[in-house]
Formats: sequence, structure tokens, C-alpha cells
Amino acid sequence: MSANKTRVRQENRGTAPGDAVGEANAPSSPVVKFGSEAPLKLDCGVELSPWQVAYQTYGTLNAERSNAVLLCHALTGDQHAASINPVTGKAGWWDLLVGPGRPIDTDRFFVICANVLGGCMGTSGPANIDPATGEPYGLNFPVVTIRDMVRAQARLLDHLGIDTLFAVAGGSMGGMQVLQWASDYPDRVFAAIPIATAARHTTQNIAFHEVGRQAVMADPDWCRGNYHAEGKRPTKGLAVARMAAHITYLSEEAMHRKFGRRLQDRDALTFGFDADFQVESYLRHQGMTFVERFDANSYLYLTRAMDYFDLAADHNGILTGAFKGTRTRFCMVSFTSDWLFPTEGNRKVVHALNAAGARVSFVEIETDRGHDAFLLDEPDLDLAVRGFIDSAARARGLPHKDLEEGKRV
Amino acid sequence: MSANKTRVRQENRGTAPGDAVGEANAPSSPVVKFGSEAPLKLDCGVELSPWQVAYQTYGTLNAERSNAVLLCHALTGDQHAASINPVTGKAGWWDLLVGPGRPIDTDRFFVICANVLGGCMGTSGPANIDPATGEPYGLNFPVVTIRDMVRAQARLLDHLGIDTLFAVAGGSMGGMQVLQWASDYPDRVFAAIPIATAARHTTQNIAFHEVGRQAVMADPDWCRGNYHAEGKRPTKGLAVARMAAHITYLSEEAMHRKFGRRLQDRDALTFGFDADFQVESYLRHQGMTFVERFDANSYLYLTRAMDYFDLAADHNGILTGAFKGTRTRFCMVSFTSDWLFPTEGNRKVVHALNAAGARVSFVEIETDRGHDAFLLDEPDLDLAVRGFIDSAARARGLPHKDLEEGKRV
Repeated sequence: MSANKTRVRQENRGTAPGDAVGEANAPSSPVVKFGSEAPLKLDCGVELSPWQVAYQTYGTLNAERSNAVLLCHALTGDQHAASINPVTGKAGWWDLLVGPGRPIDTDRFFVICANVLGGCMGTSGPANIDPATGEPYGLNFPVVTIRDMVRAQARLLDHLGIDTLFAVAGGSMGGMQVLQWASDYPDRVFAAIPIATAARHTTQNIAFHEVGRQAVMADPDWCRGNYHAEGKRPTKGLAVARMAAHITYLSEEAMHRKFGRRLQDRDALTFGFDADFQVESYLRHQGMTFVERFDANSYLYLTRAMDYFDLAADHNGILTGAFKGTRTRFCMVSFTSDWLFPTEGNRKVVHALNAAGARVSFVEIETDRGHDAFLLDEPDLDLAVRGFIDSAARARGLPHKDLEEGKRV
Repeated sequence: MSANKTRVRQENRGTAPGDAVGEANAPSSPVVKFGSEAPLKLDCGVELSPWQVAYQTYGTLNAERSNAVLLCHALTGDQHAASINPVTGKAGWWDLLVGPGRPIDTDRFFVICANVLGGCMGTSGPANIDPATGEPYGLNFPVVTIRDMVRAQARLLDHLGIDTLFAVAGGSMGGMQVLQWASDYPDRVFAAIPIATAARHTTQNIAFHEVGRQAVMADPDWCRGNYHAEGKRPTKGLAVARMAAHITYLSEEAMHRKFGRRLQDRDALTFGFDADFQVESYLRHQGMTFVERFDANSYLYLTRAMDYFDLAADHNGILTGAFKGTRTRFCMVSFTSDWLFPTEGNRKVVHALNAAGARVSFVEIETDRGHDAFLLDEPDLDLAVRGFIDSAARARGLPHKDLEEGKRV
């Protein structure tokens, strides 16, 4: 599992910052390329080769290689968890939780975040060049699963010479990966922090994803997935998909508080179809900015992977079987107003972990901000993650930097 | 307010049954046409002329003209509440609640249901021919409101010589019309049954509608609303809009019970983008059948009318003002699993009615079927409506047919 056991080539920098399509093939973050001698076996039966994984790291790996933390990103996230995103120019998606002195403290931990398999920021996905044709894969890319994403991450860790993760953490689709990690590689995960997630995608969530996919596929510029070659982009369809999804990330309470029925830059209703209401204008903006940074086919693949996720299915429908004999410590977090991944689904995982005799703590955080709360400034999330990480670090025998240096605490 | 005061022409039958576009201009139900001498004044300031209203009736108007019940349909409903729909060939949308011996008993009451203004089943809407151009209005049709719909219905009642309604009833957008009726014409409504509705559209509901409109408008076959003239139809965009909306009509519990994660006509996941899951197949079917019977522009207009609905806004934001001094009896009904028009929104209306000193009963029905419960076989809905109607009929002095004939009961 050390670096020299796998023959790989590594490039440190891509060439097209600020360009979402360029990032797929030449990411502006480190990338590991696996050649034909190191294919990735996928659940669908395909052996993907060549393939690559793009990632970002923060902090320093200690001599014992015992302080690594893997972050798993959500559907539209990427490896830039705590650094400036090269496409958007904005702060990373978990900048609030990850950094020097933050709950996931980059002064103490070696933090790794990889773009998921099927993504569009440098890890192999449908926007990458298919070596068989010299054109982007499009729908020729194999359909991947959450387990496949985790397999790819495990291969990255092998390459980096990291046998055991101190912790793996993530929300939403990231939380699914956390659960898959704990289930498939129990000896490689000391602590796990699945947030706002579930052991399987619900019927309603599959339905919302299907609407998003149909919106993309209804756009004639999708060209049956072949839009790269045709010089087009299904931006309208993808924007509609994003708008629909975005509603599910918020709560009615949060939307009401933010927008209510307030009008956008006007004093009265216009009796037309422009964005009279602020919430309409906001949603349109969300749709338009999303298509600038995301590949439409990736959206199809990643939503599909979430739909397919059903951790109990591999254990005769008994979720506890997925965690049998686990020694991993878990900290599960849900949010009261999250109707996409409601507390109930999180609690089912906790019950299964309890039945498996696992160490597990469960925090339901009171907030009106819906599913997106895991990305926002939620002091209780900060506290829960900080407390769990500190406690697990002591159990793992990791020194507490603050105590060492006699400052902070 | 009697028939002879308004010069109108009446046609009994259209010529294009089974054809949604044909129904708009030549409905296969009675239609009243109002000429240039009888324009309809709209909230947007336009005086619509000529205009028409298509309707259906069941039962017989009594000599006192006191047994009329008006049904108000929801977003995608029509006048065929209790008879075979000429386009779909299916039973009417409220067939379970309306008919001989049913809670809204067509043996006792003269039941009227009109297609709403802006609709596409014979009442004036964007699919109707604009006399100024000889082409369908498209976006040249004025944006209408719930109040405009009610104005049009009031004009129909004038034409039919009905001064006072014994009752007005409807769910969802139909419930909005019921509330508007009670507010604008308190002396013409003896009893009102608003179901699964609210006094204003919520932020989240506006957001969902905006997604639907954007899906339609993103379809190049929408042709900026001019698709009729171009010989096209934005079926893909409208199907996506319907799919997204359909999710909001159900509850997660109902979807889980109906479909769960069961696969559609296959034993295993296909690792592709076909409809693997039953819920995907179901949604696609809902989208495809909807576009056969509904006009895309009508969908834009009617969702807009719902978004604009805010009954308190005309009373300085005080909802009670909308019902000041009312003598109408109300029976408000909500459903526990309805997350589109949750009980909370219904209860706000009840509180306003209480504050106005109105007679009001409120029934929250326990069901897992979501918003669509008002259209389904819900015994408690049947009981609530039957009990309220019977009680109101006694108060109104309407004879009870069963008692008269000494049978049933």
C-alpha cells in the first residue's frame, strides 16, 4: 500500500485555471495518473484504464503517517475544500470547518480531498478524454457508484503511502462515501464523520434527481451526451436541474426568511414572466453560475451514483451487516430542517451502528437552514466536529498541538 | 344578474373532442361567449374582449335558484369535475366527491364547474385565438390573477341567473379561488369549502413554479411562447415541469410506499440512464401524458396566478380584513402529509376567519398521501364534506332528498 508498490505518474499542475472543462483533463491541483497496468475495477464490471484522480492536500503528514484526514465532497463539490477554487475564485466549500485552528485543524492533520470518480475537476469522469477515441467520454464513461468513488480514493491513499486514515468526513453524498469507507475498509478508518446523509437514497430523492437528469437530457444542446464534440453545452437544461435541486437544499423557513414574497428591484408586480420575486431572481442566478463550473454529464453520473447507493443491499438488506465488528468511532450529524436527508435517515444509520456495537455519537443540530447547513456557519456543527475530533485524536495518541506549544486551548 | 341582462352567445358543443388544442377554442362543453360590449376587467388593467368561459354542470337548478354549488379546479384541472374528460377519456377529477349520493350530491345540488381564465379547455387563455391577429394569443394574453378567475366565474353565474351560491368548493389553486370568492362576493357565498390551500403562495412554492416555468421556457420548441404559430410544442420542457411539480404533490411516505427503491421491469441495476427505478418510470409517464392534454403557455399563466395570490395584501397585510363581517360558513380541510400546502398555512386562514368572527370548522385529515389527497379516495374527506354540506343545507333550508323520498340515510 505504499507509493512504490503502484507505478504511477504524477503531475502537479494543470494548465487551464478558471476553465471547468480544462480542469477535467488538466486540473490545477495535483493529479495521480494510473496507467494500463493499474486499472480501477468498477461495480458495473468495467476495468477503467487509464484513469486519474485529482486531489488537494492541506497540512503535513506526520512521520507515523497517522494524522491523515480524508474529506469526501458532495454532489457539486470538488477537491478544493479549503483553498481558493480555481474555477470560481471563491473560498473552498469547507473553509469554515477546515484550516489552521479550525475543527479539522490543518496545523495538526494532513487533510486530503479528492475529486470524486465521475466528477469534472480532474478525476476521471465523462468530460475526460477517452483514449480510445481522443474525444471526451460522454456517455461512454462507465456508470460509477459510491463504492467506486471510495475505491478510487483508497487507491490514491495507497499511492500516498497512507495505510490508515485518522478520520474520514463529509456531508450529503460525501457522507455516503464516509459510510462506504467505514463499511469497506474498517481497518483503514479510525474515526468517521458522516453528516446529513443516509444509508440509501430515498424514493423522493431519486425522483428529484430524475427530474434533474431529464432537464439536462431535454436540452437539445446535450446532443445525447456528445455536446463536447458538437461544440455545444446544455446550459439551459443544467440550469433548470440546478434550480430544482437548489430548492431541496434549503428549507421553506430559510427561503421565507431570506426572500419571503419580496419583489426584485421593483415596487409592484409586473404582470409578466420576468423575475418579479427575489426568490426567482436568486434561483435563476444559482442556475446560471452553476453551469459555468460544472459538466452536465458529470451531473448525470453523480446523481446516478447517489440513486444507486443502498449500503444495506450488499448485506441482505440488513444495514447492521455493513458495520459488523467495526472498531471505527462514528460521529453522525443531522439538521432539524433538512428534508432532503432528514434526521430519520441519519438515525437509521445510528441504530444500525448501535446494533453492530459500534462507538457512535449522534448530534441533531437545531437549524432552519435545511440540508445546506453542513456547508454553512453553524456553531453547533463546529463544536460537534471539534469535540469529536479532539477526543478521537487523544484516543489515537495524536499530540494536541495547542498543549504542546502551550498556547490557545 | 340574470341571463337577459348580459348579451351573450352560447354554444353547446365544440368540434374537436380528444384534442387539447382544439378544446381551447372549441370546447366540448357548454361555453359562454362575451362580446366587445361585455369585456372582463382584469387586475393587470387590461379589459379582455371578446372572452369566453367554458363550463360543465351536473344536476338541476331548483326553482328558488338556491341550490347551486360552484367547484373551482386546481392548476391542471378543468371543468370536467364529475364527467368523462373529453381529452383523456378518464373520469372527472372530483368524481369521488361529486355525483348522485356523493357528498356533493348532484341529486340535490346544481353543480357548476368552469375552466379557469388562463386555462386551455375552453375558457379564454393563451391558446385561444387572439381576434386582433387571428393567431393564438401566446404571451400576448394578459397575465391573470386568482381574482380575475373568480371575476370570470361570477360573470358566468350572472349569465346563468344565479345570484347566490349555496356553496363553493375546491382544493389547492381551487381553494385559493374559494377564499377569493368568499372575500370578494361575501353575499353570494353561503358556504365555502377551501381544501389544502393557503391565503398566499409560499416562497418555496413560488420557487418550484419558477423551476417549472424555466423548464418550459428552456425548451427551444417553446419559441418564446409562439409555438402554435411555428407548428411546434415544447413537450420536453413541459414534461420536466410536470415531473418536478408531481413530486411536490406526493409525500415521501406515499412515494416510498408506492415505489420504494423497486426496479422497473428488471432484476438488477443496469448501470445506465434508463428508468431503472419504478419511481423514474412513473414520473416519466406523468410527464409524457400531461403534455398530451395541457397547453404549455397555460401552465406559465396559471402558475403565475398562484404565485401572485396574496389575499392579505389587499387589506394592508391583515388577512382578517379579507373576511370582515362575513356571514359565510367555512369548512377548511388540510392533510397532515401535505408539504406543498401544509396545515400551518390552512390554519392561518382559520385564525383569520376566527378573528373575523366567521363560522368556521377546520379538519386536519391524517393521511400519508400528500397534497394530492384532496383528489383521492380519503374517507375522512368524504365524511367532512358530507357533514358540512348537510349541515349547511339544513341552515339554508334546502330539503334533504333522502328524507323526502324516505330512502337511504
